[in-house]
Amino acid sequence: MSVLIVGTVAFDTVETPFGRAERILGGSATYASLAARAIGAPVQLNAVVGADFPDAHIEALTSRGVDCEGLVRDPDGETFFWAGRYHYDLNTRDTLATHLNVLATFEPDLPASYRSPEVVCLGNLDPTVQGSVIDQASGGDPLVIADTMNFWIENTPDALAETLSRVDVLVINDEEARQLSNEANLVRAARAIRELGPKTLIVKKGEHGALLFAGDEVFAAPAYPLEDVIDPTGAGDAFLGGFAGHLVRSGSSDAETMRQGIVIGSALASFVCEAFGPDRLLEVTDAELNQRIGAFRRLSEVREILAA
Amino acid sequence: MSVLIVGTVAFDTVETPFGRAERILGGSATYASLAARAIGAPVQLNAVVGADFPDAHIEALTSRGVDCEGLVRDPDGETFFWAGRYHYDLNTRDTLATHLNVLATFEPDLPASYRSPEVVCLGNLDPTVQGSVIDQASGGDPLVIADTMNFWIENTPDALAETLSRVDVLVINDEEARQLSNEANLVRAARAIRELGPKTLIVKKGEHGALLFAGDEVFAAPAYPLEDVIDPTGAGDAFLGGFAGHLVRSGSSDAETMRQGIVIGSALASFVCEAFGPDRLLEVTDAELNQRIGAFRRLSEVREILAA
Repeated sequence: MSVLIVGTVAFDTVETPFGRAERILGGSATYASLAARAIGAPVQLNAVVGADFPDAHIEALTSRGVDCEGLVRDPDGETFFWAGRYHYDLNTRDTLATHLNVLATFEPDLPASYRSPEVVCLGNLDPTVQGSVIDQASGGDPLVIADTMNFWIENTPDALAETLSRVDVLVINDEEARQLSNEANLVRAARAIRELGPKTLIVKKGEHGALLFAGDEVFAAPAYPLEDVIDPTGAGDAFLGGFAGHLVRSGSSDAETMRQGIVIGSALASFVCEAFGPDRLLEVTDAELNQRIGAFRRLSEVREILAA
Repeated sequence: MSVLIVGTVAFDTVETPFGRAERILGGSATYASLAARAIGAPVQLNAVVGADFPDAHIEALTSRGVDCEGLVRDPDGETFFWAGRYHYDLNTRDTLATHLNVLATFEPDLPASYRSPEVVCLGNLDPTVQGSVIDQASGGDPLVIADTMNFWIENTPDALAETLSRVDVLVINDEEARQLSNEANLVRAARAIRELGPKTLIVKKGEHGALLFAGDEVFAAPAYPLEDVIDPTGAGDAFLGGFAGHLVRSGSSDAETMRQGIVIGSALASFVCEAFGPDRLLEVTDAELNQRIGAFRRLSEVREILAA
């Protein structure tokens, strides 16, 4: 039983109104893996780093129980680097630098032990790379969960369509959902996107929470109203990892389990926002997590009501 | 037992991507009153109309049980007129015309029977007018619920501060909350605003739902994911009227009752969006409303979850 997480392991330089962090551990696969591990889901990580990536960072992942057999080191290049600056409201950011480095030529070649996962969790990557992972990991007929972004919607629509036809759960933000479907209304957007392949759609709305379209139902989860958002980097990836991790450990992907997965993913994402980098994911305790999950459920709890 | 609703009764001309409606019945007090009546709350309406206002519109209100003794007709002027055009996504709109007409000189003078309500519901009006209503309606020590908007925050901050000190529940949108508090973070904004007077704050977020800050708790309600939004005009006012109406009919203003009031207000607001004008509020049945309220509760329902 495991979730295969494929994405980036990176150096991030992040500026927010509350400070700056230089070349800290980042990347979609880092946040997703640590989030899944925080709830005890077995994680197999596939990503590439460069010659400059410190062993201490790998140690941080393995000490949390992330299987790093598939974490490839490319000795001829540098680790993927991203730099960004958040605006005053922390809901929008500018990308200051994206150095693909070793990611530019990364072609996943999964270890034998990675080829039969129950769940495949694909971070935002070239859809062709995502498709190659689905090919290699198809041994156990896994549930495929994928992220994507506007860059691929605009620049590689055909490759994206091909990959989407093989995705079970697509996780994107509201702007991307509108762009991918050409529909302003999210209910219509969701219907159009689900006709492209993914039976289930999760729309992330940042500080406004997330919507799950699964089966005939919609589930609306608020975001946790945090007073001190320090750095939202990685929150979406932790959400994805927590969601995927909950499906794996539950051995189920029915709509109820997905609702729970969204609450767990949201709780984990809220911890990520409380500090720069993935530090809170590395140290969060079960007690803290249970407390936050309980607060999440209480957040939208309401007694039965009659119209008249 | 009654809720006193003070606001505008108006003619609206509305353009959306789905059509245009010319000089239809509108106004904050119209929508709020009909919403409160739809759940059976006794409503006393105070507003002004001009010589041009048709008896048929008044009849529409009285036939739904709205007490219109305080609906004043000013024979020397025309009814308040608003025209607006919604953008493609229906979340933003441009105001094309605002003719205050009889509203410019409106000074509420409540009938004797209106002076002891349990709840006062003040639509978006000059804060000085809102203050005058609070003075006149203070006979029964009512709970005061008020709306306001950026115009008053920018142009009459002192009068607004004076009125806010007498308001129990303030209902504004997220942009106004940030503007009023000078805080980007909504949790901090809520704390700052609650120090100005209102013990309870409701932040409306349009298609993203609403947040209630009451006592030590936050309640997050999603908006109902409608596939066909035809005209959102009046949705916020129906939300307010439904919320106030539920408090009145429950004889309570504790946090649980307010949570329910938000769900009821949201359900009523969702009906308003389904057609031009207040038609859906005039015809909605208890069965339809109960079905929608049930769907609302199901929308954010999730089973208990443990971290590990």
